[in-house]
Amino acid sequence: MASDGVGAEVSNKQVIFRDYVTGFPKESDMHVTSGTIRLEVPEGSNSVLVKNLYLSCDPYMRGRMNPSTDAGYIGSFTPGSPINGYGVAKVLDSGHTNFKKGDLVWGITGWEEYSLITAPEALFKIQHTDVPLSYYTGILGMPGMTAYAGFYEICSPKKGENVFISAASGAVGQLVGQFAKLLGCYVVGSAGSKDKVDLLKEKFGFDEAFNYKEEPDLAAALKRYFPGGIDIYFENVGGKMLDAVLLNMRVHCRIAACGMISQYNLEKPEGVHNLTNVILRQARIEGFLAPNYYHKYPQLLELVLPYIREGKITYVEDKTEGIESGPAALVGLFRGRNVGKQVVVVARE
Amino acid sequence: MASDGVGAEVSNKQVIFRDYVTGFPKESDMHVTSGTIRLEVPEGSNSVLVKNLYLSCDPYMRGRMNPSTDAGYIGSFTPGSPINGYGVAKVLDSGHTNFKKGDLVWGITGWEEYSLITAPEALFKIQHTDVPLSYYTGILGMPGMTAYAGFYEICSPKKGENVFISAASGAVGQLVGQFAKLLGCYVVGSAGSKDKVDLLKEKFGFDEAFNYKEEPDLAAALKRYFPGGIDIYFENVGGKMLDAVLLNMRVHCRIAACGMISQYNLEKPEGVHNLTNVILRQARIEGFLAPNYYHKYPQLLELVLPYIREGKITYVEDKTEGIESGPAALVGLFRGRNVGKQVVVVARE
Repeated sequence: MASDGVGAEVSNKQVIFRDYVTGFPKESDMHVTSGTIRLEVPEGSNSVLVKNLYLSCDPYMRGRMNPSTDAGYIGSFTPGSPINGYGVAKVLDSGHTNFKKGDLVWGITGWEEYSLITAPEALFKIQHTDVPLSYYTGILGMPGMTAYAGFYEICSPKKGENVFISAASGAVGQLVGQFAKLLGCYVVGSAGSKDKVDLLKEKFGFDEAFNYKEEPDLAAALKRYFPGGIDIYFENVGGKMLDAVLLNMRVHCRIAACGMISQYNLEKPEGVHNLTNVILRQARIEGFLAPNYYHKYPQLLELVLPYIREGKITYVEDKTEGIESGPAALVGLFRGRNVGKQVVVVARE
Repeated sequence: MASDGVGAEVSNKQVIFRDYVTGFPKESDMHVTSGTIRLEVPEGSNSVLVKNLYLSCDPYMRGRMNPSTDAGYIGSFTPGSPINGYGVAKVLDSGHTNFKKGDLVWGITGWEEYSLITAPEALFKIQHTDVPLSYYTGILGMPGMTAYAGFYEICSPKKGENVFISAASGAVGQLVGQFAKLLGCYVVGSAGSKDKVDLLKEKFGFDEAFNYKEEPDLAAALKRYFPGGIDIYFENVGGKMLDAVLLNMRVHCRIAACGMISQYNLEKPEGVHNLTNVILRQARIEGFLAPNYYHKYPQLLELVLPYIREGKITYVEDKTEGIESGPAALVGLFRGRNVGKQVVVVARE
């Protein structure tokens, strides 16, 4: 056993996925166990062995709790195995020439203290550490790329346009709103609590924000905030909110379909009734997935790193401590319990 | 009164719109009356006076039977006044420098034997008369532009792609299918009768076609015809068919939302439940209106006139004779009674 810990067999707490989920996920759909892991890469393997620091809770993970036929684009979790997802980690041992001990990376890793990553080519090496490392699960990671691709690539926004964002205080929404404000758009967000609405207006600089739970008529609420109609809708929730937006579109409205979290836990998704307006308004609804845009990651960094350093973009995280807190944090996402980007802190370095 | 009829006051049969419509339109929502009209343009006016030859029955006209708040892009019909819509007409007198007596035109005209058109700038002058004149209500008119814009501009089709078209034997669908076949796509259409299905396969050269009324499970039907999924859906019907398509999309599927005729007569449109697949498949649903593409009309002519002359594109019309047959023809459109493009023949020259 080397003195620096490499090669040692240590205990490794893991969050295990019990079985496929119907309806809202519960904490008991996962359980925390403790295994052991040897802190070195097997001889001849090009894997990397990492210590996980921050784990990311993201809405797309709900789809992965379904059987593989409708799990979405990454594939289902495996019952009896650890959950995996985006995270920030430190390389402890590497069999891959791109990575060496001490490197910081972000990408798909296990929900456990240490992971052996067998396809490390998909990891991003972290080059900038003057910003919080946890940001690489958010503004500087997959959610950042989601906001960047969805807003700039899908919506082709123009100064002065009217932008509406649902789930606007979340990992992606808060960033889209700030991008839109920096571009000179009129920006309104919806969220599910007074605290979140306050955050949108006071911290992120949205022009207006409202609590959708207090609006009996969402179409009327949107009409109030957008008397001239919506040019861009950044769609994170689906269902009734989408239907209300369809009644409030300006001509050539663009809807970036990023997520539909309100639908993920329903056995039958709600019906959307106002799609004929897509024709009348010559509107576009376009779905997208961030990984398809990862080749533009350098552009994201170039855009947001200066803004972060200058304090022109702020990013709010909701951190829970310890891998044991993971199941509750992930489950809470689907109840809207998080305020800002939900992160699980496994270790700080 | 001039010997050529110009200046004469003659009787003028008109199809009058009675009042706004709820549910399916009925023949009795219109009535035919006879007024009189002087066959000359008023002194100093830049109007044109036309004799209407062919009137076009188009699905978008249903929206114009609603009160103006949801009439769509042209505006409601006026209760007590003649219906108007696309048609082919001959100029009898002109106060506009662009037009002279004897010119043939297509564009918006009244459902009457003679019309005074006060904004003739919007009319298209017909230059090619070696093809049937009635085609300017169809393949060479608005429906032609609809097929052209929807397929080439909205869908960006590529050779070998899998194309599905609903209401495929209609004015637009039959043309989209032939465009797609000429490009080398695999093309399947749906329609509402055996006759129409036969037409699709035997006359228009679709690879496959099916009668949606005989398919208890539309998603299963599409799965059968598209085991690898749909690349392009040309949407003419909406509702359940759209929902079934959403379950059968390939990645980057494009849906050109041209019309949703199954929904126009419902008091509450059906719910569409499978929109989350738009995200997972990175799909795009885009609404469009042909008039926005009229600047490309020369390209349509350049494309289709040779095909028509060479017999490489065929166009099936369903003609009824006499303006008195107009209400039944228009109403029949929403019951699927027409086989091919529905045209009302008012006069042949």
